[in-house]
Amino acid sequence: MGVLDRITDPRVLRGLSDAELESLAAEIRDRLVSTVARTGGHLGPNLGVVELTIAAHRVFDSPRDPVVFDTGHQAYVHKMLTGRQNDFDRLKQAGGLSGYPSRAESEHDWVENSHASTALSYADGMAKAFAVRGESERTVVAVIGDGALTGGMAWEAINNIADGPQTGPGRRPLVIVVNDNGRSYSPTVGGLAKRLTGLRTDPRYEQALEVVKRTLGRTALVGQPLYEALHGVKKGLKDLLAPQGMFEDLGLKYIGPIDGHDRAVVEQALIQAKGFGGPVLVHCLTQKGYGYEPALRDEVDQMHGPGPFDPATGRPAGSPSRQWTDVFSDTMVAAGRERSDVVAITAAMLGPTGLEAFARAFPDRCFDVGIAEQHATTSATGMAMAGLHPVVVLYATFLNRAFDQILMDCALHRAGVTFVLDRSGVTGTDGPSHNGMWDMSILQPVPGLRIAAPRDGTRLLEQFAEALDVDDAPTVVRYPKGSVPQDVEALERVGGVDVLTRAETEDVLLVAVGAMAGAGVDAAERLDAQGVGVTVVDPRWVKPVDEALVDLARRHRLVVTVEDNGRVGGVGSAVAQVLRDAGADVPIRDFGIPQRFLDHAKRDEILADVGLTGQGLAREVSGLVAALDSDTEAGDDATSTVRP
Amino acid sequence: MGVLDRITDPRVLRGLSDAELESLAAEIRDRLVSTVARTGGHLGPNLGVVELTIAAHRVFDSPRDPVVFDTGHQAYVHKMLTGRQNDFDRLKQAGGLSGYPSRAESEHDWVENSHASTALSYADGMAKAFAVRGESERTVVAVIGDGALTGGMAWEAINNIADGPQTGPGRRPLVIVVNDNGRSYSPTVGGLAKRLTGLRTDPRYEQALEVVKRTLGRTALVGQPLYEALHGVKKGLKDLLAPQGMFEDLGLKYIGPIDGHDRAVVEQALIQAKGFGGPVLVHCLTQKGYGYEPALRDEVDQMHGPGPFDPATGRPAGSPSRQWTDVFSDTMVAAGRERSDVVAITAAMLGPTGLEAFARAFPDRCFDVGIAEQHATTSATGMAMAGLHPVVVLYATFLNRAFDQILMDCALHRAGVTFVLDRSGVTGTDGPSHNGMWDMSILQPVPGLRIAAPRDGTRLLEQFAEALDVDDAPTVVRYPKGSVPQDVEALERVGGVDVLTRAETEDVLLVAVGAMAGAGVDAAERLDAQGVGVTVVDPRWVKPVDEALVDLARRHRLVVTVEDNGRVGGVGSAVAQVLRDAGADVPIRDFGIPQRFLDHAKRDEILADVGLTGQGLAREVSGLVAALDSDTEAGDDATSTVRP
Repeated sequence: MGVLDRITDPRVLRGLSDAELESLAAEIRDRLVSTVARTGGHLGPNLGVVELTIAAHRVFDSPRDPVVFDTGHQAYVHKMLTGRQNDFDRLKQAGGLSGYPSRAESEHDWVENSHASTALSYADGMAKAFAVRGESERTVVAVIGDGALTGGMAWEAINNIADGPQTGPGRRPLVIVVNDNGRSYSPTVGGLAKRLTGLRTDPRYEQALEVVKRTLGRTALVGQPLYEALHGVKKGLKDLLAPQGMFEDLGLKYIGPIDGHDRAVVEQALIQAKGFGGPVLVHCLTQKGYGYEPALRDEVDQMHGPGPFDPATGRPAGSPSRQWTDVFSDTMVAAGRERSDVVAITAAMLGPTGLEAFARAFPDRCFDVGIAEQHATTSATGMAMAGLHPVVVLYATFLNRAFDQILMDCALHRAGVTFVLDRSGVTGTDGPSHNGMWDMSILQPVPGLRIAAPRDGTRLLEQFAEALDVDDAPTVVRYPKGSVPQDVEALERVGGVDVLTRAETEDVLLVAVGAMAGAGVDAAERLDAQGVGVTVVDPRWVKPVDEALVDLARRHRLVVTVEDNGRVGGVGSAVAQVLRDAGADVPIRDFGIPQRFLDHAKRDEILADVGLTGQGLAREVSGLVAALDSDTEAGDDATSTVRP
Repeated sequence: MGVLDRITDPRVLRGLSDAELESLAAEIRDRLVSTVARTGGHLGPNLGVVELTIAAHRVFDSPRDPVVFDTGHQAYVHKMLTGRQNDFDRLKQAGGLSGYPSRAESEHDWVENSHASTALSYADGMAKAFAVRGESERTVVAVIGDGALTGGMAWEAINNIADGPQTGPGRRPLVIVVNDNGRSYSPTVGGLAKRLTGLRTDPRYEQALEVVKRTLGRTALVGQPLYEALHGVKKGLKDLLAPQGMFEDLGLKYIGPIDGHDRAVVEQALIQAKGFGGPVLVHCLTQKGYGYEPALRDEVDQMHGPGPFDPATGRPAGSPSRQWTDVFSDTMVAAGRERSDVVAITAAMLGPTGLEAFARAFPDRCFDVGIAEQHATTSATGMAMAGLHPVVVLYATFLNRAFDQILMDCALHRAGVTFVLDRSGVTGTDGPSHNGMWDMSILQPVPGLRIAAPRDGTRLLEQFAEALDVDDAPTVVRYPKGSVPQDVEALERVGGVDVLTRAETEDVLLVAVGAMAGAGVDAAERLDAQGVGVTVVDPRWVKPVDEALVDLARRHRLVVTVEDNGRVGGVGSAVAQVLRDAGADVPIRDFGIPQRFLDHAKRDEILADVGLTGQGLAREVSGLVAALDSDTEAGDDATSTVRP
């Protein structure tokens, strides 16, 4: 039995010897690699926090002392140390272990969401609450990466954390562990990052660490006033090396930088930090992918979140099909060649959004702003004001962060900015915080903004070009995760609406939004076999609603909308409102993702589960048409609910 | 003719003598006070930026060099210097001068929106765009208060601005003028603010300024290398006084602190900053209300944004009626007495939201987090996780900043946090960025969240208490700006819905949301006189939609919803969806604020203009009922659009 299997509770960690702890770290890394090789998942980040997480759980008393991870994908090690080490075979599978902290799984998990830069805010709130409740002996621990520090929320939190009473009865013990690996997905950007990089690559830092180790020795550290020792060494270096001025200007105690892979050193720093009794920042230098050669060799993202791979080589298993992201990547490079005013902006997602090719082709016209969707949006607005056409490329779920900026900065100024939303709709295995099911609801109220939902690769290309031609309003082009489907050609175009199928009778107008076109056509074929005539249309641009839909609707007995967006406030509601406004009271039913936080599972599993497939839609529409028919037979009476 | 009236263009400023410039500053202050005394408006902030704005327009070449003001309410002086000095008599009136920059008014105004902390992002975008376009000789100037620096966006921007090339062909000249008056509305909070306050109150700062003045003399400054001189003086003080470490750790050049009311000193610093050719931060110390005794004496907010007042004394003209804010203020204090777990959080709006009384009564349970709605929301979530019931009090329009945090942090974790939204609906004179017409649309898709829209003071009290009783989901209580109306008592309650009026026939079900109750009852009376029977109901909680509305709807020929929120995706759409889902295809028409950015005017003027009055509603509903009637008479035919 290995050491890892003996960790039934994090308290067990405290009784382990140095040798056992070293063995534990190795076992954890083995299990991380072997598990993720089979299931896919977040690898690089977790390999980098093994020692740090062990140290935190030895020094603090979770769950009484909450340990909050910023971007929970770095919490695998935490899960292994809190009783879930044997559940990793079903990582990210339906019904299996979540890829993020989960309160349903463990009392050691406080925070589930995994949008970045939030941990310090939760922690500040918890620390304030403990102070109000007279529980100031509890320490809150927040682990945050240097990448997440580029997000504005983290700064709002630091400014507040530093503001609290440092001692006395109202004090708020809070330890910020900065896991500084120099990377978000790819290298962290910004002024602070440059400073930190300078620090990591300065040979004097290595020398300083050596001095500490040589002077004090490994074993002597435990129980010794390491902080003072480190601090002493650092004094001479601090002006050159540490971002201490910055944090101390804010009034925040700072310990570091320390070697985040030296468990004993981290532990000692955390003990020291805990002893202060107020807020302290502990700056740990780590390496993403530490201990696994293929990850360290991966220059793109140190195997940040691979699919299944061969553990011996790190090479992906299977050959990937052409993705929506690939289509956009090519399209964007072509646009860059055609128009010198087209520039790109991303929020720390150069690789995952397919912008890397554009960045290579036009390095001066591509801006990675860090995990900073707000700044991405408003700086894009500034660029548009100054004569460019910026393309802001984000995951759909992260657009939520910039809602106010899209509304008040971009739309109010009628700025010609194009937002490209990758991973819209159901994404699946990353759980509720990664599904892109919100954008078409929250963007509906934004005056002037236009939304395109291309149904296939050809339409992505076409509609992106149309978006670039709009210079007096923000435009959005959204498409899902995964393989791009076969093209679906239109029979004709009515107004701006593509008619995809026609039947002998005009029973049902099925408005299929974007990637739902395939399911719509499938449903129409199934219904045709049942004698129900369905006209399937793709509105292409879903905001504003095309007036052609009103005329089309009037010719049918029932209108059905289908979208891979939350049902509430989405395209279905917008179409319904336009029909109401036109006085076209044709019955309408809207299908979309149910408005709840979805459990993690594969995208296809979820779509089938919520009925967003050809089969599911056919079944529902069939029932609605049957109700219409029985209504018609019964004649018009006061209680009939569906009108022919 | 005074100097001010001669400024037909900011370039005229460059030819003025020191004496003329001094006279100009005095004239501007006179006009600010005399104007705002009549019209109401933003006074304190503008009195503080007189010299700074004059200096900026002498050094830079607006509009070729864009001057962007963070929170545009500090742009009155800028307006006076760019040809609008004679338009101030109609400040903030319908058709008159906007209280914020306005591109329709002047080419010198680049940015209209006035949500805080955005200026640096626009500026970064503009500077990047000029670099891409080969126009690096243009300098972008951003004026930002220390209050706005507490917002995360500002930090995202600084991190990016510091990251750019400082010299060479791709350089991005950008001057950040920090207007440090120690205040947002009220004193700025946070670690950085503490540091700055220490600086301002340190006697050595005054001494340093004296040394500079004595050594170099006033006139000698112009054209001299003041920066070096100041820098030399500062060297010895910097560790104690300036937040230089912080900005220099980020890699940003820093000049200051300088006296923001010494026009020559500011000018010299700006010339120096412009000369660098890359990004520079110029730190100006100013005083809100400078030069007007009544403002300086006002300890609450230095007459930040008074209504009309007596210019001799600064005392408000007229006696104010009881406001919605006053009702909440009392309610909150009572809740604090009743429940020790109730705490309050505000984003730099302690006074305007009525939280001051609570803060006085429970200083340890009230947290002002700065202009940081994101942090307000997520730290509140942390507090709820740790056993408190936090009440986050914001202006409705600023909630937009925290959408992602409400969704992914608060709602996903089912945290019992109550959001109180003051100034919801039409606010009017502050223009498009201040109307609170978005919240009931963007919050509809948030799973589990509940929204209360009280119709009067009694309901605010009741529904706030109900909100505090919800501990497993976020709740929202929203109410408008202005005087609280007379209570409207219900005839009965059906489900959770209050029935306010009943008529002899059940023609129309009028669902009046919150403050629209009065207009709804008024409309019903007018329609009753025309023989149209209207049942007016107030759903009280508008999300989730009360099922009782479905049964009520089925008994009527037409459902009409009225809300003081944008029409798109609001309560009307939610009710319509619930009726569709229940198969209740009663015709429904939804009234609300048209989905566009509204020009500034008085709240009542706007409501009348968009038809949200008893008269306007009665007219519309009357027309709809007439259409129903003619339809019924014509019998059921294929082209009829409204169904009985």
